[in-house]
Amino acid sequence: MNATIHQPSKDRTQIMQDRFLRACRREAVDTTPVWFMRQAGRALPEYRAIREQYGFMDICYQPELCAEVTLQPVRRLGVDAAIMFADIMTPLIATGVGVDLVESIGPVVANPIRTMADVSRIRPIEPEVDVPYISKSIHLLKAELGQTPLIGFAGAPFTLAAYLVEGKGSKNFLNTKAMMYGSPNVWHALMERLADLTISYLRVKLAAGVDALQLFDSWVGCLSPHDYATFVQPYTARILKTLREETNIPLIHFGTNTTNLLPLMRNDGGSVLGADWRIPIDEAWQLIGDDKAIQGNLDPAVLLGPWEYVREQAADILRRIDGRPGHIFNLGHGIHPQTPVANLERLVAFIHEQRA
Amino acid sequence: MNATIHQPSKDRTQIMQDRFLRACRREAVDTTPVWFMRQAGRALPEYRAIREQYGFMDICYQPELCAEVTLQPVRRLGVDAAIMFADIMTPLIATGVGVDLVESIGPVVANPIRTMADVSRIRPIEPEVDVPYISKSIHLLKAELGQTPLIGFAGAPFTLAAYLVEGKGSKNFLNTKAMMYGSPNVWHALMERLADLTISYLRVKLAAGVDALQLFDSWVGCLSPHDYATFVQPYTARILKTLREETNIPLIHFGTNTTNLLPLMRNDGGSVLGADWRIPIDEAWQLIGDDKAIQGNLDPAVLLGPWEYVREQAADILRRIDGRPGHIFNLGHGIHPQTPVANLERLVAFIHEQRA
Repeated sequence: MNATIHQPSKDRTQIMQDRFLRACRREAVDTTPVWFMRQAGRALPEYRAIREQYGFMDICYQPELCAEVTLQPVRRLGVDAAIMFADIMTPLIATGVGVDLVESIGPVVANPIRTMADVSRIRPIEPEVDVPYISKSIHLLKAELGQTPLIGFAGAPFTLAAYLVEGKGSKNFLNTKAMMYGSPNVWHALMERLADLTISYLRVKLAAGVDALQLFDSWVGCLSPHDYATFVQPYTARILKTLREETNIPLIHFGTNTTNLLPLMRNDGGSVLGADWRIPIDEAWQLIGDDKAIQGNLDPAVLLGPWEYVREQAADILRRIDGRPGHIFNLGHGIHPQTPVANLERLVAFIHEQRA
Repeated sequence: MNATIHQPSKDRTQIMQDRFLRACRREAVDTTPVWFMRQAGRALPEYRAIREQYGFMDICYQPELCAEVTLQPVRRLGVDAAIMFADIMTPLIATGVGVDLVESIGPVVANPIRTMADVSRIRPIEPEVDVPYISKSIHLLKAELGQTPLIGFAGAPFTLAAYLVEGKGSKNFLNTKAMMYGSPNVWHALMERLADLTISYLRVKLAAGVDALQLFDSWVGCLSPHDYATFVQPYTARILKTLREETNIPLIHFGTNTTNLLPLMRNDGGSVLGADWRIPIDEAWQLIGDDKAIQGNLDPAVLLGPWEYVREQAADILRRIDGRPGHIFNLGHGIHPQTPVANLERLVAFIHEQRA
């Protein structure tokens, strides 16, 4: 394995640079595009080096730093898309909801949202005042990336609400569900505000020139299909359909543990759907239908195993896709911090070496 | 709602007392049988009163106490089966693996299992020496319960192994998966020993006269179907098939988050399969096939909501079952400690009031 294989080649052609966007549109590609959720993060030593000097939000606030960590995995791994470094809680932090991003724990909300009065603390975003650094980061990145596409993302309202209601990550999301079932008016008011906030936040990224948008609903898989349809779908669908009226770029709708939600999510307006490792990717694609592209679906825990096992499992995904246009190789969830970088490097090279 | 509705009626007939077992065998019943995972537990004030005086394992070790807490939900809720109070870690604790059952956390393993040498610490169970209290508890319970069936249970090898390898509950089971992928010989040796232990342990319950056995694989839903088939299924199948050769009583195979595993689990030898709330119960039954009974599948979080919402969701489950023989009403996972008892009482009464 030659190290230069992992570097973006200087003479790559338009079709190679467009691999990711073409796959999102279900067009033919020279080989399968690949990027990784949380590719800009603790698995990379160069990211850890920056984090020794700067806090997570410091990086978000400083466009040069944000661009640097966003570019790191493109340089090292040769992935086919960059995803702008941020946290799903960024727009909430920006609008004054007290959230700490605690190492190894995740977002911790100082005063969890439980009542209608709490919900009124979620205010609309004022882009120029609240998130001026985002457009600057995107402009910097677009100049640096050249033709490599840039993905902007936001947390989906359910996952944001779950953090806000629980106060932090949760195993069973009992406070969240208790609010949905017991105080649906509070729940719906919260989701309305989060949907508005998310639309405004993604519009900033869109206006600044991102090439694709991804909505992360990491925890939505704790819900029954009924609860998804009743308490979540109206809001994710409003976000995606509103954005679709304003842009033709790919809209990626991602969740984990969504086997039974995919037949609902397919109607929410995303053009690409994510699928995690719990469902074979060919079965997931059947559930979401021919008119969608699919992104996934290697278990990120597999990357903690030996390369031979990673290769086998990645090959199985490609075998199930069988060259059908519209597949973006990714993990079923974010890279775990303890992942060996060598496995990531070899995986990108391996995917690219296979013909799509 | 009359309180006496919730008491087991003194003149109930054989078919009523047999409701649970008949449903497990997919025979006609007068109305749908119902019991709840973790029905003997912290949601009941009479259980909390006992726990103020005794530790969890003290209750397991003392047959009178074990029988008392096992009977509490039968008396208060009028459920159609009792499940013998224990923890899935009981056989491991009994054979000398250091495990603490920590309030609000769950099992904590003093020295997690990571190497082949660690695996050798898992020794076979010697029933008379290690768990003499189990037969005594079952004999007491059978005398007290009369015709109400008694379920005995064990943790399935994957969930036991996950606790042993992680050292405690986990979000992503990364140590467990890293062992499966990176040290499969250690993993398989561990699973072999746990399967042997589980068979011996369930044989003790069988010999003492339980009416049904349930295998709890609470965390198995973190796995892909491939990993289930490769790393878990040989052991669950060996347990269930070995027991099936020795008994005709119902064998219930339970996991959460198993939508994509059910088509595999159906071949493991259970006669009843559990399904959680992530999949509509009629769809789950289609996946497991006509020759199995099904147990489930209300989200236990629903019980934290208002009664009207509980009733609607329970009615939806019954509507999807539509009187088909072979349904045992239960939750998709255990009762949460903060569940209002009134919702449990009303739910049992509601299920019984509907004709099967």
